[in-house]
Amino acid sequence: MNMLRPFELPLGRRMAGSGDKLGVLIPGMGAVATTLIAGVHLIRKKLAKPIGSLTQMQEIRVRDEADAPMMPIHELVPLARLDDLVFGGWDIFPDDAYQTACDAGVLSREVLAPVRRELEQIRPWPGVFEQRFVRRLNGTHVKPAASKMAQAEAVMADIRQFMEERQLKRAVMLWCGSTEIHQTISPVHESLVAFEQGLRDSHPDIAPSMIYAYSALMTDLPFGNGAPNLAVDIPALRELADKRGVPIAGKDLKTGQTLIKTIMAPGLQTRMLGLHGWFSSNILGNRDGEVLDDPDSFRSKELSKSSVLDGILEPQRYPDLYGDYFHKVRIEYYPPRGDAKEGWDNIDIFGWLGERMQIKVDFLCKDSILAAPVTLDLILLLDLAHRAGLGGVQDWLSFYFKSPMTPPGVAAEHDLFRQHARLQDMLRRISRMNRSEQPDSEVAQTAGV
Amino acid sequence: MNMLRPFELPLGRRMAGSGDKLGVLIPGMGAVATTLIAGVHLIRKKLAKPIGSLTQMQEIRVRDEADAPMMPIHELVPLARLDDLVFGGWDIFPDDAYQTACDAGVLSREVLAPVRRELEQIRPWPGVFEQRFVRRLNGTHVKPAASKMAQAEAVMADIRQFMEERQLKRAVMLWCGSTEIHQTISPVHESLVAFEQGLRDSHPDIAPSMIYAYSALMTDLPFGNGAPNLAVDIPALRELADKRGVPIAGKDLKTGQTLIKTIMAPGLQTRMLGLHGWFSSNILGNRDGEVLDDPDSFRSKELSKSSVLDGILEPQRYPDLYGDYFHKVRIEYYPPRGDAKEGWDNIDIFGWLGERMQIKVDFLCKDSILAAPVTLDLILLLDLAHRAGLGGVQDWLSFYFKSPMTPPGVAAEHDLFRQHARLQDMLRRISRMNRSEQPDSEVAQTAGV
Amino acid sequence: MNMLRPFELPLGRRMAGSGDKLGVLIPGMGAVATTLIAGVHLIRKKLAKPIGSLTQMQEIRVRDEADAPMMPIHELVPLARLDDLVFGGWDIFPDDAYQTACDAGVLSREVLAPVRRELEQIRPWPGVFEQRFVRRLNGTHVKPAASKMAQAEAVMADIRQFMEERQLKRAVMLWCGSTEIHQTISPVHESLVAFEQGLRDSHPDIAPSMIYAYSALMTDLPFGNGAPNLAVDIPALRELADKRGVPIAGKDLKTGQTLIKTIMAPGLQTRMLGLHGWFSSNILGNRDGEVLDDPDSFRSKELSKSSVLDGILEPQRYPDLYGDYFHKVRIEYYPPRGDAKEGWDNIDIFGWLGERMQIKVDFLCKDSILAAPVTLDLILLLDLAHRAGLGGVQDWLSFYFKSPMTPPGVAAEHDLFRQHARLQDMLRRISRMNRSEQPDSEVAQTAGV
Amino acid sequence: MNMLRPFELPLGRRMAGSGDKLGVLIPGMGAVATTLIAGVHLIRKKLAKPIGSLTQMQEIRVRDEADAPMMPIHELVPLARLDDLVFGGWDIFPDDAYQTACDAGVLSREVLAPVRRELEQIRPWPGVFEQRFVRRLNGTHVKPAASKMAQAEAVMADIRQFMEERQLKRAVMLWCGSTEIHQTISPVHESLVAFEQGLRDSHPDIAPSMIYAYSALMTDLPFGNGAPNLAVDIPALRELADKRGVPIAGKDLKTGQTLIKTIMAPGLQTRMLGLHGWFSSNILGNRDGEVLDDPDSFRSKELSKSSVLDGILEPQRYPDLYGDYFHKVRIEYYPPRGDAKEGWDNIDIFGWLGERMQIKVDFLCKDSILAAPVTLDLILLLDLAHRAGLGGVQDWLSFYFKSPMTPPGVAAEHDLFRQHARLQDMLRRISRMNRSEQPDSEVAQTAGV
Repeated sequence: MNMLRPFELPLGRRMAGSGDKLGVLIPGMGAVATTLIAGVHLIRKKLAKPIGSLTQMQEIRVRDEADAPMMPIHELVPLARLDDLVFGGWDIFPDDAYQTACDAGVLSREVLAPVRRELEQIRPWPGVFEQRFVRRLNGTHVKPAASKMAQAEAVMADIRQFMEERQLKRAVMLWCGSTEIHQTISPVHESLVAFEQGLRDSHPDIAPSMIYAYSALMTDLPFGNGAPNLAVDIPALRELADKRGVPIAGKDLKTGQTLIKTIMAPGLQTRMLGLHGWFSSNILGNRDGEVLDDPDSFRSKELSKSSVLDGILEPQRYPDLYGDYFHKVRIEYYPPRGDAKEGWDNIDIFGWLGERMQIKVDFLCKDSILAAPVTLDLILLLDLAHRAGLGGVQDWLSFYFKSPMTPPGVAAEHDLFRQHARLQDMLRRISRMNRSEQPDSEVAQTAGV
Repeated sequence: MNMLRPFELPLGRRMAGSGDKLGVLIPGMGAVATTLIAGVHLIRKKLAKPIGSLTQMQEIRVRDEADAPMMPIHELVPLARLDDLVFGGWDIFPDDAYQTACDAGVLSREVLAPVRRELEQIRPWPGVFEQRFVRRLNGTHVKPAASKMAQAEAVMADIRQFMEERQLKRAVMLWCGSTEIHQTISPVHESLVAFEQGLRDSHPDIAPSMIYAYSALMTDLPFGNGAPNLAVDIPALRELADKRGVPIAGKDLKTGQTLIKTIMAPGLQTRMLGLHGWFSSNILGNRDGEVLDDPDSFRSKELSKSSVLDGILEPQRYPDLYGDYFHKVRIEYYPPRGDAKEGWDNIDIFGWLGERMQIKVDFLCKDSILAAPVTLDLILLLDLAHRAGLGGVQDWLSFYFKSPMTPPGVAAEHDLFRQHARLQDMLRRISRMNRSEQPDSEVAQTAGV
Repeated sequence: MNMLRPFELPLGRRMAGSGDKLGVLIPGMGAVATTLIAGVHLIRKKLAKPIGSLTQMQEIRVRDEADAPMMPIHELVPLARLDDLVFGGWDIFPDDAYQTACDAGVLSREVLAPVRRELEQIRPWPGVFEQRFVRRLNGTHVKPAASKMAQAEAVMADIRQFMEERQLKRAVMLWCGSTEIHQTISPVHESLVAFEQGLRDSHPDIAPSMIYAYSALMTDLPFGNGAPNLAVDIPALRELADKRGVPIAGKDLKTGQTLIKTIMAPGLQTRMLGLHGWFSSNILGNRDGEVLDDPDSFRSKELSKSSVLDGILEPQRYPDLYGDYFHKVRIEYYPPRGDAKEGWDNIDIFGWLGERMQIKVDFLCKDSILAAPVTLDLILLLDLAHRAGLGGVQDWLSFYFKSPMTPPGVAAEHDLFRQHARLQDMLRRISRMNRSEQPDSEVAQTAGV
Repeated sequence: MNMLRPFELPLGRRMAGSGDKLGVLIPGMGAVATTLIAGVHLIRKKLAKPIGSLTQMQEIRVRDEADAPMMPIHELVPLARLDDLVFGGWDIFPDDAYQTACDAGVLSREVLAPVRRELEQIRPWPGVFEQRFVRRLNGTHVKPAASKMAQAEAVMADIRQFMEERQLKRAVMLWCGSTEIHQTISPVHESLVAFEQGLRDSHPDIAPSMIYAYSALMTDLPFGNGAPNLAVDIPALRELADKRGVPIAGKDLKTGQTLIKTIMAPGLQTRMLGLHGWFSSNILGNRDGEVLDDPDSFRSKELSKSSVLDGILEPQRYPDLYGDYFHKVRIEYYPPRGDAKEGWDNIDIFGWLGERMQIKVDFLCKDSILAAPVTLDLILLLDLAHRAGLGGVQDWLSFYFKSPMTPPGVAAEHDLFRQHARLQDMLRRISRMNRSEQPDSEVAQTAGV
C-alpha cells in the first residue's frame, strides 16, 4: 500500500495543470449544486462575489510567523480558476439546473435571470437510485436496475464521455445527494476485493453513494462527500484511493448549527467554563429535511452532529468541566421554511463556584448558501491535492466537515480554529513545494503534525 | 527609560517567592471582589472548584508543537497558591465583605455560610471618591477631601500598614471599582512630572482610579484595571510602571457579551462570511448598571466594547465582507435583574451571492461569576510577571480584557483564540526561563511576537 | 340520566358548607402536589402570596356590564378558605411531602424551612400502579396487585378513613400523577356496567388513573385531571358522574407553552394575520420529562397540545389565513434543567400581500410553579360546583386545561380570553343563585351559554 | 358644542353613499402609504388577498350572543369598496408612488410589477414642512414658507381640486408622515380661536401635522393619525371636529412590538401572573428609524409605547402583582434592516410564591406590512363613522392604535381583546341603525358602554 500521508508530500515537483479546464461532477443536482453553479456563473460575470469561499477571498500568512506577510490563498497556491470549471452531474429527477434552482427557492428568479441560459444547459444524467437508502424520495430519472457493477460502469461511461466531449484532463466528483440511511461497516465494505464482488452481486449493503465513489476513484477523480452517509468512508474505498493515489474527503458539510457549535465550544473551553447540557433543535423544510424525516436517515445525521462536542471539550482531560454534560440534537422537518433552515441552541453552562448561566443561539440560515462556497473550496482543494500528489484521506480539509474523515487511528479535529490552522499549514506546505525544486526539508522533519 | 518588552525577558534568572504570601488589594469591594474572595475561601475548603480560572484548571502544551505533552498551567509556571492569598481593599461604603456579598445577591446565603467568618473580617478602608467621576453613587466611607497627593499618600499608608501587619513581601492591586466617566488624555496625564504636580494641585482631570494606580506603582505593586476608565492607561503612569519595572494591565474585564463577540466574530471571519450589522443590547441591574445609566460613564464602556469588531474582522483587508458593517452597543439599566445580566445580540451576516442570514445570541449570564475567575488569574499572572522581571504593559494578558492595553504603536488583539495563543506562548517562555540557567535563545531571536 | 348542564342550576338554593374543612386528595404526590401544599401553608402563615390563583387574587365584575363594580372572586362566591384545606394523597414512592419537595428542587430548602413540619406529616398511602401505563417509572410503594376492583376498594377505604379521622364532610380529588400512555376509548370504557365488570376482571385497558377516578366518584368526591391521559374522560365515568351529580373536569393543566399559545393565537387571529407554521419545542428534565421520553406517554401529551390551534384559528372560516398551516410540537427530555422547563416557539406568520414575518417566543418557566395555583383553583371551584349542585363535566373550567373536557357534541373552547369570560360568567351565575331565594330567571332563559 | 358620543347615534337614519367613490388623502407618501396603495391595486386585480384587514376578511357575530350567526364585517355594515378608493397625497420628496415603493424596499419589484402603472400615476403634492419638527429629514418638495394659515389654505385647495377633478363626494385623510418631535399642549392648542390666530401668526408650536388636520376638518374630511405626534389630538381641533361633526382618531398605529405587548399582557393578567419588569428593544432601519434616532422624535414614540402596560395590568387593583414593575422601551436606528424591523422583549414574571420566570419574544416583522391593512381599515371605518353621523373622537377604533385618543376624562383601553370587543360592538350598533327605521332602543339605554 502506498498511501501518502499529508506530511509525506512528494517533494521537489512543480504542479502542472492550473491553466486547464476542470470538470466538476456532482451526484445530486439539487439545491446545493444549483446554488453553487449559479453562483460560479454570476461571479464569472462579475455580478456577485464569492462570499464564504476561502479559496477565493481569504488571505493567509505565507509563513507560520506572526509577522509574515499575508497573501490571498489563490495566489499562494495554483488553484483552478472559476473560469475553468465545467459542470455536469446526475440526478434522479430530470429537471435542468435552472428548473431545479427555481423549485429549490434558494435564489430568486431575479437573481437567476442573468445565468438562466447557462443553467438550462446543464441537464443531469439519470441517477443511480435504490429507495431503501432514501425512503422519502421516489426517483423517476434513474439508471436501469441492472447489477450494481453495471451501474458503476454506466457512471464511469458518463464520466469518460463528459471528459472527452468537453476535452477535460482533470475532474473532481462531489456528492451533493440526499442523506442515505444510517449504515455501519459490514463485511462487503471491508476490502476492495469483497466490495467489487459485492458490486457484481448487487449486495444490498452497497449504497448508491458508494457506487459513485467507486466510479470516481476508478477514473482517477478525487471524491468529496457532502453528506453524512458512508459513501467513500469504507475500508474498501479508502484502500482504492490509497492504491490509485486519489484524494478523498468527507463527511457532511459543516454549514449551520454545527458550524456555530464548533465556534462556540472552543470559546467556552478556552475560558474553562463548564457545560451541563447542550440542546440543539433544527427546523428545515427543503428536500433534505424531508429525507431526514425518516428516522434512519436522521440517524446518519444525528451521529454526524453529535460527535463534535467531545472532540472539542476533552472530557477526559477536564472531568470537572465536561465529564457529565448532556447533548441532544434534533432535526425537524418543517415545510413552511423551505431552504431557510433555523437552528436553535440552548447551552447550559456553569462558571465560578458552579453557578449556572445560559446561552441561546438562534441561527436563521440558508442551507445552500452556506454550503455552496464550501463545495467550491472542496472542489478546488481536492483538485489541488491531486495535482500535488496527495492521495487518500485529506484530513487537513476537516475545516469543511461536520464529521471529518481521518486516517485510521487518528482522532478527528472539530475545533474550527484548529481546523483552520491545519488547513492554512497545509496550503503553505503545498506552496513551498510548488515554488521550490528543492526538497521541502521542514516537511520532511515534522512527520507528526 | 527602561521598559521591558515581553520578549526581552531578563534571562537566566530563577523566580523566587512562590511560597510566600501574596497580598491582594482591591479598590472597589463590591460584587466582583466579594465573589472572588468568597470563592477563594470556598475553594481552599474544598467546597467548590475554581471554574473559569485558567491558572487553576487549564492544561497547555509545554512546547508549541502539536505533539508536545500537556501540563496544568500551575505546574508549568510558579504561581502563588490560593492558600497564600491575603485580601484587603477600599470601598466608599463601610460594609464588610459578607454584608456586601449578601446585598449583591450573586451568591445565596446558603453558599456563603461556610465562609461567612472569613468575609466578615474583611472591612474596607475608606475609599478615594470624587462624585463627578461616578455621578450615580454617593459614597459615605471616604478619605478626607485633602489634596489628591494627600489621598495617594493615604492609600500608600494603607498598603504599607497592611503589608507590615500581614508580613507580606509582595502584593498586587486590581481595580474592581465602578466605571468612571469617559475621559480623554489631557496634559496632566502626559508625563509623570505633570501628573505629580497635578496630584499636588488636585487637578480635576485626575480620577480616583489614577490615584490608586499611582499609589500601587509607587509601592511596587502591579496594577490591573478591571473597568474601562483610564486609570493606569495614561502616559504618566505607563512611564512610572516602566521606570520602576512594575507590570500593568487593562482595561475592562472581558466577561459577558464581549466575550461572546470575540468568540463569534473570529468564527465568521474564518469562514469568510460577511457582516451587515451587529446590534448588541445589554440589560443589567446591579450597581454597575446603575452607574452606567449615566451617559458619561456609559461612554467609557461603549468605547471599550465597540473597538473589538474592527480588530478581529480586518475591514481594510476584506472590504467586500467587512467594509460597511454597522455596529451598535447598548447598555440598559434594568433593576429587576440584579447581577444576572443579559446580553442579546443580533448579527446580520451575508454569504454566497450576498444572501442574508441572521444569528441571534442571548446570553443569560452573571457578571460577577464570569469576572471572579478572571480577576483571580490576573492577580496571579501579574504577580508572576513581576517576579519574572517583566515591567510595563503586559499585552499578553489581552485575553482577559475588552479593551487591551498595548505598548505604544502596537494594535490590540481582540480575537479570543489568538489572545489565548499569546497567553500560552508567554507562559511557556516564562516556564523555560524559570527552568534554565541559560539565556532563552529563542526569546532573544523572536523579537517580533 | 340526570346530568345537570351548567345552565340548569338548581335554583333558589343557598350553598352550605363554606365554613367546614375540605379534604384535598391527590394521587401523585410529586413536584406539583408538594409545591401546592407547601405554598398553601406558607400563605396561611403570611409568608407568601397566592400568585397565579384567580380564586385568591382576581377581581371580576359583579355583573357582565362594563360599568359594574369589581369584586374579588372569593367574596363573590362562597369558596372554601385556605385555612380549611386538609391534604392527603397517594404515591408509588414512600417519601413524605418534605422529602419529595426537596428532591423535586422546585423550591429551595430556605423557602421550605418554615413549613417543613407540616410537610413531613404528609405521608402518601401506597399507590395503584401498573407499569405498562408509565413505563419509565418503577414504583416501590404500591397497593397489592389484587383485582382492579380490589384496588378501587382499597382507595375508597383510604378516602373514608381519612375523612373520618379528620372529621371531613367534603373532599375533592385531583390527579397530579404522571402522564400515562396514550389510549383510545375501548369497549370496557363505554358504559358503567362494562367498566365495573372490567374492574372485577382486571381488564388491561383500565388504567390506574381510572381506578382513582372511579373511587372518587363512588365516594362523591369531585374529580379533576391534571394530566392528559383519559382518567375520568371515558363514557363509563362520565355516566357515573352524571348519575351521582358529582362534578368532573380535565384534562392536562395549561401551564407553559400551551398557555402562551392560547394567548398568542387569539391575538393573531383577532388581527387577521395568517399562519404558515408553528413549531414548538420543549425541554424539561423533571420526572414528567422522563416519563414523556417514552413515545407512548408523549403521544398523550402531543395530542393534548396539538388540538388547541385549530380550535382558536377556525381554518374552515378563514381558509386563506389558516387553511394550510403546519403545526409541530416536540417535548424533549433534557435532564440539566430539572423542573425549570423551557418552551421555544417559532411562529411563521404572514400579513398584507402574503409577506412573511416570524415570531419567536422563549418561555423559561417552572412547571410546578405554574401548575400549583391552577390546582388550587380547580380544587376550590370543583368543590364550589359540587355544593352548587352542578354534576358531570364542568366545561366552564376549560380556562385551566390544555385539552378541556366538554359535554358530548360540544366543541372545546381554547381561546384563553373566551375561556376566561366563561369562567367569570359562571361565577356570576353561582353568585346570583347563592344570594337569592328566587329562581335565577336569566339562567333559565339563556339555555345556550 | 355638540359632540356626538358614540352611544348617541343619530337614530333611524339609513346610510347613503356606499356606492360612491371615496377619496383617500395621505400626508406622507412613504413606505406605509405606498404599501397600502400597491396592495389595494393588487387586490383589485385578484393578485393578492387583503391579509390583516378586518374590514375585508373578518367575520363577527351579528348580535352579542354566543350562538348568533357570524357575518363578514363588510356585509354587516355598508363600507366603501376597494374598487371605489381614489388615492392622493402630499410628500416632501417629489418621487411618484412607484419610485417610493421601490426605494422603501418593502415589496420587491416582482410584486410591484403588475401595478406599476397605477403607482406611477400617483405623484404627491408638495408637502408642508418645518424642519424643527422632523430634524433628521430635509424636504425638497415643499409648499412655500408663507404663513401657516396660507399653508393650510394651500392644502385645502389641493383637497378641493382633487375632489373636483375626480368627482368625489367624500374623502378621508390619514396621516402617514414621519413622527414629529414630542410636544405638550400649549396655549395656542387650547381653543379653536387661539389656534386659528396661531395659524395666522405662524406660531412655532403649530406642527405640520396640525395644519393638515385643520385642513381636513375644515373640508369635512375625517382625520386619522398614524403617528404618535399630537396632530389632531389638541383641544382646538377636537373642538373643531365636534363642531363640524367630523370623526377623528389616533394616535400611532399598533403594529409590531406594542401589538405583541397588548396580546401578552392581558394573558399574564388573566392568569394573575406578576410582573417584575418588561424590557423592549426595537431595531429598525427605515426612514421611520432614522427620524426616531432624534431623541425628541423618539420621545413622542416612547411615551406612546409606554402607557400601554399600566392600562392593561391595573397596578392599583393588583399592587402585589403589578405595583412595582419596571418598564423600559428602546428604539434603535439600525440601518442594515431597512423596513424589516425587529422587536425583542424580555419579560420578567413571577408566579406562585414569587418564583421568577422569564419570557422572551422576538418579533421579526415588517413595519409597513403590518401597518397597511390597519390604514385600510381606518380609512373605511372613519368614512363609515362619518356617514353614520358620528363626529369627534372615535375611541371604538382604539384597537388600531398604540396610544388611543379618548374623549376627555375617559381612560384609554389597551387590552387588544377588549378593544376588539368594543370595535365589534360598535359595528353591530351601526349595522342595527342602518337596517332599521326605528330608534335603536338598546343604544339609548346603554349610555355607559
